[in-house]
Amino acid sequence: MKSAVERFWEAVPEQVEGKPVDGAILTSAANCRYLSGFPSSSRLVILTREQAYFLTDFRYGEAARKKVRDCQVVVFQRREQSVKEILRRHGLKTVLFERETIPLVEAETLGGLCREEGIAPIFDNTLDKTMEGIRAIKTPEEIDKIRAAQAITDEAFSHILPFLREGVTEREIALEIEFFMRKQGAERIAFDLIVVSGENGSQCHGVPTDKPLRRGDFITMDTGAVCDGYHSDMTRTVALGEVSEEQRQVYDTVLRAQLAAIDTVRAGVHCHIVDRAARSIIEEKYPKAFGHGLGHSVGLEIHENPRFSPACEDIAQPGMVITVEPGIYLEGRFGVRIEDMILVTENGCENLTHSPKELLIV
Amino acid sequence: MKSAVERFWEAVPEQVEGKPVDGAILTSAANCRYLSGFPSSSRLVILTREQAYFLTDFRYGEAARKKVRDCQVVVFQRREQSVKEILRRHGLKTVLFERETIPLVEAETLGGLCREEGIAPIFDNTLDKTMEGIRAIKTPEEIDKIRAAQAITDEAFSHILPFLREGVTEREIALEIEFFMRKQGAERIAFDLIVVSGENGSQCHGVPTDKPLRRGDFITMDTGAVCDGYHSDMTRTVALGEVSEEQRQVYDTVLRAQLAAIDTVRAGVHCHIVDRAARSIIEEKYPKAFGHGLGHSVGLEIHENPRFSPACEDIAQPGMVITVEPGIYLEGRFGVRIEDMILVTENGCENLTHSPKELLIV
Repeated sequence: MKSAVERFWEAVPEQVEGKPVDGAILTSAANCRYLSGFPSSSRLVILTREQAYFLTDFRYGEAARKKVRDCQVVVFQRREQSVKEILRRHGLKTVLFERETIPLVEAETLGGLCREEGIAPIFDNTLDKTMEGIRAIKTPEEIDKIRAAQAITDEAFSHILPFLREGVTEREIALEIEFFMRKQGAERIAFDLIVVSGENGSQCHGVPTDKPLRRGDFITMDTGAVCDGYHSDMTRTVALGEVSEEQRQVYDTVLRAQLAAIDTVRAGVHCHIVDRAARSIIEEKYPKAFGHGLGHSVGLEIHENPRFSPACEDIAQPGMVITVEPGIYLEGRFGVRIEDMILVTENGCENLTHSPKELLIV
Repeated sequence: MKSAVERFWEAVPEQVEGKPVDGAILTSAANCRYLSGFPSSSRLVILTREQAYFLTDFRYGEAARKKVRDCQVVVFQRREQSVKEILRRHGLKTVLFERETIPLVEAETLGGLCREEGIAPIFDNTLDKTMEGIRAIKTPEEIDKIRAAQAITDEAFSHILPFLREGVTEREIALEIEFFMRKQGAERIAFDLIVVSGENGSQCHGVPTDKPLRRGDFITMDTGAVCDGYHSDMTRTVALGEVSEEQRQVYDTVLRAQLAAIDTVRAGVHCHIVDRAARSIIEEKYPKAFGHGLGHSVGLEIHENPRFSPACEDIAQPGMVITVEPGIYLEGRFGVRIEDMILVTENGCENLTHSPKELLIV
């Protein structure tokens, strides 16, 4: 298995703006973790063709020396000085930077430092696209971590069903799911869990409130765990006690849209085609009720590219892990979302989500 | 009580680079929340002298309309188009941007959009410094939220003491503290809780491991909660069963350093003086064992300015909430840190932390 640093050098263009690429400086949490295997709030990864470096300060030095892989650890006193020494040591001519995430002030500081050394800093999106490209195709090791995170998420869904009854609040449900996930070994929850019920269900990204469950509520639970840095993401909507005919129709429409979308997934399909498959079914009966994209990739971050969205021209490739999460939101009334996480394969996809999704009335 | 938007317009310079300041565009999570009272991952705050705006997308529209204060909510389809309309409506000439946090790509997109409209985007640190300045002085309402977060943190410390015994792991302790805090109403923990013991204690920002507690271990617990967006931060180091003479000396040195530092705090003192008071005591006997700053401000973010650090030339002012957290770290052997959060007052300070800090042997 090639290291992430090796995969980087295979994927990066040889030249940018007519100049050979011989270095890169990365600051973003996810990219630095991807390349070094080590999460830290104090970090800088410098890639050269000869050697990769992980720079951190005093506070994280001991842990970094133990855990960083594929990079030489440099504990700096003065960061800029350490960066300069490395740039000089390797006689770099061009250094790529991340365009999407680097704060302006860092772009100016580190870019200026390169210029002082006669190095051309490149702030186009070459580095972002290169990292996005290698991170989009998950390695078997990464997929195992996502599976582990999803296994906890599936267990949490089974765990929470008997907990749903009249009077229990959204916040209590969210907390119970969170505690359960952490006890099962999740290093954290993947995002602020969404538990919305009844009329709150139309807020697709609502925050759990003290609203108690009532008979006839739909309860939408958007949940996920993190294992060793990797995320899972699943949404289920269940009904309490009873459902109206309209609720049932909305649920069935979302489920049909989701299944239709999953049916289109295979290596080679354009991502927007998958979005279209779900969207066309929903819009037929519920125009304007599905205001977000169909899905996003999942990995070291909860939202990665490519996306199953109307505008995404990317092509699905084996190893991509992407959510399929259509929804219908009727403002002030109720909402339904159903979300699975699928792994794109050569001839279709593997659904990494194992919780049931037929309409459950609990 | 003036609104945050009103405080902004009182604090911002009238002119920058010789031009009158008549607008600002903010993207950072904490600043947008500070000004609007609403947390969202999809956000943009635009300030004009006539009207403040909070921009978000479809997903957060309903919640924003309910919860945003002091700003008009704009739910955009195409963000850049909405920004343009607002800039035109108010005939802005100069717009401030955040220098420290804005991603390069946003600086280019939004800055470019301003230039297209004949508006000068300003990327110096005026906006950062203005926001930092108003956020550094906490309002009574903010202090109440910090007190609420610290009350939970103090309760968690009392709760965890009987839980500390041989064989319990660092991870189990961290999880128990976290669950307790969440059950007490914390909206989240303030940061990944640090629980390190024995030789792990020399990693001042160590991650809890499966190492079980052993007799003679120091256990350092750096913990905090978040209530309504506001953080608390406290560290306590306790001993299990017994301590060596050396451990006791190290503990006493850290405690003496901490008390000496707190003694220097009052409105008007330079922040580096407070750091010096603790550092000189530690360095006398343990040179190079205290590698981080003495403290940081706390608020909507866990690390804010000003800081009690060797380089901080800021002057303490009433209403600032800052940690005092000296430590001694003996690599591979053990470590001690003691941290309180203090509120600067006219004649001294109020310690917001109420947990005991004499050496506890549990």
